[in-house]
Amino acid sequence: MRPAIQNKMDGKTKPLGSLGKLEDLAVQLGLIQSNLTPQLGRKLMLTFAADHGITEEGISAFPSEVTYQMVDNMLNGGAAINVICQHYGIEFKLIDVGVKGIFTKHPAYINKKVMESTRNFSIESAMRQEEAEKAIEAGITVLGEEYQKETISVLGLGEVGIGNTTAATAIICAVTGISPAEATGRGTGLDDQGLQHKANIIEKALKLHQLDSTNGFEILRKVGGLELAGMAGAMLAAAARKIPVVLDGVICTSAALVAYLIKPEVKDYFISGHKSVEQAQKSALEYMELTPVLDLNMRLGEGTGSAVCIGMADMACAIMRDMASFADAGVSESIMS
Amino acid sequence: MRPAIQNKMDGKTKPLGSLGKLEDLAVQLGLIQSNLTPQLGRKLMLTFAADHGITEEGISAFPSEVTYQMVDNMLNGGAAINVICQHYGIEFKLIDVGVKGIFTKHPAYINKKVMESTRNFSIESAMRQEEAEKAIEAGITVLGEEYQKETISVLGLGEVGIGNTTAATAIICAVTGISPAEATGRGTGLDDQGLQHKANIIEKALKLHQLDSTNGFEILRKVGGLELAGMAGAMLAAAARKIPVVLDGVICTSAALVAYLIKPEVKDYFISGHKSVEQAQKSALEYMELTPVLDLNMRLGEGTGSAVCIGMADMACAIMRDMASFADAGVSESIMS
Repeated sequence: MRPAIQNKMDGKTKPLGSLGKLEDLAVQLGLIQSNLTPQLGRKLMLTFAADHGITEEGISAFPSEVTYQMVDNMLNGGAAINVICQHYGIEFKLIDVGVKGIFTKHPAYINKKVMESTRNFSIESAMRQEEAEKAIEAGITVLGEEYQKETISVLGLGEVGIGNTTAATAIICAVTGISPAEATGRGTGLDDQGLQHKANIIEKALKLHQLDSTNGFEILRKVGGLELAGMAGAMLAAAARKIPVVLDGVICTSAALVAYLIKPEVKDYFISGHKSVEQAQKSALEYMELTPVLDLNMRLGEGTGSAVCIGMADMACAIMRDMASFADAGVSESIMS
Repeated sequence: MRPAIQNKMDGKTKPLGSLGKLEDLAVQLGLIQSNLTPQLGRKLMLTFAADHGITEEGISAFPSEVTYQMVDNMLNGGAAINVICQHYGIEFKLIDVGVKGIFTKHPAYINKKVMESTRNFSIESAMRQEEAEKAIEAGITVLGEEYQKETISVLGLGEVGIGNTTAATAIICAVTGISPAEATGRGTGLDDQGLQHKANIIEKALKLHQLDSTNGFEILRKVGGLELAGMAGAMLAAAARKIPVVLDGVICTSAALVAYLIKPEVKDYFISGHKSVEQAQKSALEYMELTPVLDLNMRLGEGTGSAVCIGMADMACAIMRDMASFADAGVSESIMS
């Protein structure tokens, strides 16, 4: 399939490769969809939300209650992810796998709460065996139920959960071997002192848990988060149905790393939507040999980078579908060919 | 105006600056439009086309006839710029300022032909005084006529003209002082030998013309091109009407450099749409202190990078318009603020 798709792209009236990452995107979508003319019908964004016990350690610029407030904002349509999904015609669902507090019924809200917040992973495991399993299953179930309703052409993933860059960074350190000092970033806006403290907490947790770098499930259970588990589950379920999965920033990428350790074949369905400003994402992407599509200095999460990339993917499909070939247009290919 | 617009963006429910370049884009559009809620109504792409005498020197991977063929392809809707403009609702016009050959009447075709091709600037000036003036006037006139028909919210610019990366690189070398060896790129697809030859030709032309680095018009006339002059004219006319101008890659950026030397105030209306793979563009952008929005490894021209950025700008406006503020949403700003 690859040569046929690549040939079709190379025959378009443009110098070879001159549309850069837009070409790569169209070719990868064609490969995943087994279609010379890939198309994006139903575009679905699943944003997983949960709280984190690690916030007790003061590792975020925002208090834990902001998770609830931001979910509420998303259900009211006021968050960045709502605006971006609306703009690109992406359906948005919020999956609560562990937010502290009760939400009123809402068409975009899916209640799969496993528990209210993980435990503080700097002193104990974030989740017990059955809690981590339930959170992964939540992602698998939601994806399955949505697919049952209507086929999904492309899946976007995002998250909200104060404290979750700390969990994501711990996962990435455990898997790739990068040090917390190198990997830790400012999250939603830490100062230098906060950054140092966050790195120390991750360092402490890694010492405590003595993680096996190849055991995705145990890493996720001990230093991860409920929403990370939900995303990993959704990735596994999407790949099983041959649905392309557009990853978001560092947190989503850490969940992808877990899914990849559990089932390496999922990687073929991954598209890295954008380069986050968080250093840890780079290590995780290198580990999976993925290259991000966009680089817009974004670090918001929620699925925003994934959603912007899905908008771009729509356009890449239009290029594959609508551009004339050299043969169609009667344009000379080059004096050299 | 700037503090008010920046405040509005900073009050949105997201960590400060976390939407990166999307925020910068919305803020700049707001500044140019003097509007806290910038919006893109009519989006216009003007693609200027012309041939180049310098192609006699064998500096391109494509023969000169491809300019005509590509314009024809654009009028038939089969080029990349057509597909991208169509996708983002951008109106497309092709301005012929010097293509060899005759086109049949077409609603997107504007005939402002000054002459058929420039002269070979490695042995004489590309244009005479009145030819260069006419080509600049063509851009000014077209922009004025289009604006007369209906207000323009944002202007995209592009070009087609086999040989024009050679002219663009010569201009950028003349203005910024970068050497042809450093600045010259592969254009539509030169091999190593072709690249070396192209750099030598530019070196030779710069020696011949002994250009004054501050005289934009003379540089344009002696080593530029008709479509570069047309774009520079359209930029000057757009800035005079306070219309944001989204630049494309290296060729469009070289025309921007000329417009900037002629009237430095135009810079406030420039948005660099994307980072080209051509090295010379970087020098030109640094000279004007501009930062490109997108980095997609594109090098196609036609206005494609500009058009993709206009699509992104539409979304940036939606963010400014539709996202809730911390006050609206009742979300805590941070424990630190």
